[in-house]
Amino acid sequence: MMRDVFIIGVGMTKFGKFMETGMKQLAAEAVSGAFEDSGLGPNDVQFAAVGNSGWGNYSGQTCIRGQVVLRPLGMGGFPVINVENACACASTALHSAWLYVSSGQCDVALALGMEKLYHEQKELVMQSFIGGTDIEESMKLIAEAMESGQNPHTIFMDIYASEAHKHMDKYGTSQRQLAVISAKNHHHSTMNPRAQYQKDFTVEEVLADKPVTFPLTRAMCSPIGDGAAAAVICSGDYLKTLNGAKPVKIAASVLGAGADRGPGDTHICRRLSAKAYEISGLGPEDIDIAEVHDATSYAELAATENLGFCAPGEGGPFAESGATALGGKIPVNTSGGLECKGHPVGATGLAQIAEVVWQLRGEAGARQVQAAKIGLTQNGGGAIGNEEAAMGIHILTI
Amino acid sequence: MMRDVFIIGVGMTKFGKFMETGMKQLAAEAVSGAFEDSGLGPNDVQFAAVGNSGWGNYSGQTCIRGQVVLRPLGMGGFPVINVENACACASTALHSAWLYVSSGQCDVALALGMEKLYHEQKELVMQSFIGGTDIEESMKLIAEAMESGQNPHTIFMDIYASEAHKHMDKYGTSQRQLAVISAKNHHHSTMNPRAQYQKDFTVEEVLADKPVTFPLTRAMCSPIGDGAAAAVICSGDYLKTLNGAKPVKIAASVLGAGADRGPGDTHICRRLSAKAYEISGLGPEDIDIAEVHDATSYAELAATENLGFCAPGEGGPFAESGATALGGKIPVNTSGGLECKGHPVGATGLAQIAEVVWQLRGEAGARQVQAAKIGLTQNGGGAIGNEEAAMGIHILTI
Repeated sequence: MMRDVFIIGVGMTKFGKFMETGMKQLAAEAVSGAFEDSGLGPNDVQFAAVGNSGWGNYSGQTCIRGQVVLRPLGMGGFPVINVENACACASTALHSAWLYVSSGQCDVALALGMEKLYHEQKELVMQSFIGGTDIEESMKLIAEAMESGQNPHTIFMDIYASEAHKHMDKYGTSQRQLAVISAKNHHHSTMNPRAQYQKDFTVEEVLADKPVTFPLTRAMCSPIGDGAAAAVICSGDYLKTLNGAKPVKIAASVLGAGADRGPGDTHICRRLSAKAYEISGLGPEDIDIAEVHDATSYAELAATENLGFCAPGEGGPFAESGATALGGKIPVNTSGGLECKGHPVGATGLAQIAEVVWQLRGEAGARQVQAAKIGLTQNGGGAIGNEEAAMGIHILTI
Repeated sequence: MMRDVFIIGVGMTKFGKFMETGMKQLAAEAVSGAFEDSGLGPNDVQFAAVGNSGWGNYSGQTCIRGQVVLRPLGMGGFPVINVENACACASTALHSAWLYVSSGQCDVALALGMEKLYHEQKELVMQSFIGGTDIEESMKLIAEAMESGQNPHTIFMDIYASEAHKHMDKYGTSQRQLAVISAKNHHHSTMNPRAQYQKDFTVEEVLADKPVTFPLTRAMCSPIGDGAAAAVICSGDYLKTLNGAKPVKIAASVLGAGADRGPGDTHICRRLSAKAYEISGLGPEDIDIAEVHDATSYAELAATENLGFCAPGEGGPFAESGATALGGKIPVNTSGGLECKGHPVGATGLAQIAEVVWQLRGEAGARQVQAAKIGLTQNGGGAIGNEEAAMGIHILTI
């Protein structure tokens, strides 16, 4: 029933700390990049889905964020859906745009994700993070933490760390294995000129970095950041009218939200990737490269298991074997991942897409994976019950 | 290519000032109402689109608003898209849910819109309104207004009023004709137990009410409000499995965004309604009832023209003739409209849908339009260029 949909252009800003650059400028750079890459322009777009998480907190710009950033680029008059889904905003935007094209509502659509997190008022960053949870519940947790003299800023990292602890207890996963993942991503980032950090870390340096909450050190956690990323997509019929296009097919676009998961129930990442594999007719053994949501290096370890790249409990040894490094069986986060490329929340899912598109087209420069034909992105966001509040998984093929 | 989609249940809270009622409670009441009406329950839902405009401003609850309000109702584990589009949030949510069902992604979906605008800090209300515009531009306007000693709170009403002025100059429309529309809606609202205000106003009383900006008086403007509205929709195949369902068909679901319109260019409302008529195979002459976005009574006048219910320039005489009143040719805003039923921004579009569904099913009580078979809703939001930043138009048939 659904039509084939192709990504014909991607663009992204460098990720980093850009205090003097406004959201409109970031969006313009990403969108212009995607246009240049696709050979299309503002007048060709028939629908846009725009994801952002924190602009409202920082400036009061809520409601019509997409229309506001697209208008200075000469774009308007077509439907715009502004979407939110915490750190999974951008994959939600791509999913919405994919649905518009695949269902035949339009032939050409734009997906855009954008974020500015650096701000002089640092408490706004905290507020943006809490917005990805049930704020009533989180405010209670924070109040309790402060009463007991705890630093409220570590609460969320504590929650992430406690998942890592469980894995360590159950499977013997070591802190060193987490550091291997982080060091691998730091090394990848040295080959990505758009990465926020491009600095090599040895495993020892990762372990010796500032402790956040055991087993996590600073080098194992994603920084905050500013940036934007965009994709221009089109239908198969429209593609036939283009000369010199470099299409990458969206073989599966799957969105889901988390739930209260009982013991033995399948994690959202496993449920959604199973669906993506079914839709695409592919399996984890077919995936050549993946960009996964390594908000912490433990999250990457869990993703490699839940996506079926290795068996449950084997994520640590799998990383240690070099399987997920450049040159390994299935390179993961060649971009440097959220840990090093950076994590401007609303932009992340489309930055993952851009990396996979460049890899599949053989345009990834020093970090190119040879003969990569099939790639996967996994983008999670927020927390609800005991799962991510939202997750988008895409499988791309060339 | 698209499948038929049916609304099988609607629910809404009374609209009003509910300082002690939280967003979760409002959402629960609307969703429970829609479930009760449809005969379905939380476990039947496979997708949800949730619209809200200002919760982030008021409480910091951004990002995953839908997941947060649905979880206490035992709902989770299916995809949720959180949408924003200023006052057109709820029709954007319905459009997104319609697309999920019509494209075959799922069989049963929930669309929810919700808003709380009353707050002890009144400046937050202003902030919410500005979020529906390009905030950089608006802050400049406000700064200029304050420098010249003007009350910044009247700026936006001034913009609405200036449109009315143009119409008065061009077509001889009178302030009294605007008051006729307002008095008509106030009379309709006396028959709607869910309306925020249920008080009859004569034309003279409307004219004598507190002036806002000429030609608008307070009785011609929508109030702020709290409330929620929801719809459960399903595919035709799924409908066949239900006993005792009361389906209303979505004959057209059209979303658009505004643009910088040159002289002679067609207004967004005319463009989108033309598309809705084409999709449904219907025309303005077929419409039995309509709920339109009367943020002010001038907006209703313009809508009756742009939707083709009367000729351009004839909106004033058309209203004066009684055509848009109960018992007239095409009753408009039998609910009382935004002016009287109220306008909790994120809920409005789905409250319009609820009214039309009740009318088409013959369940509208004292305000029932006899033998209404075809209804239209028009829901606009925000401002971009010289048009609404977003607009959703739906045509429903029974």
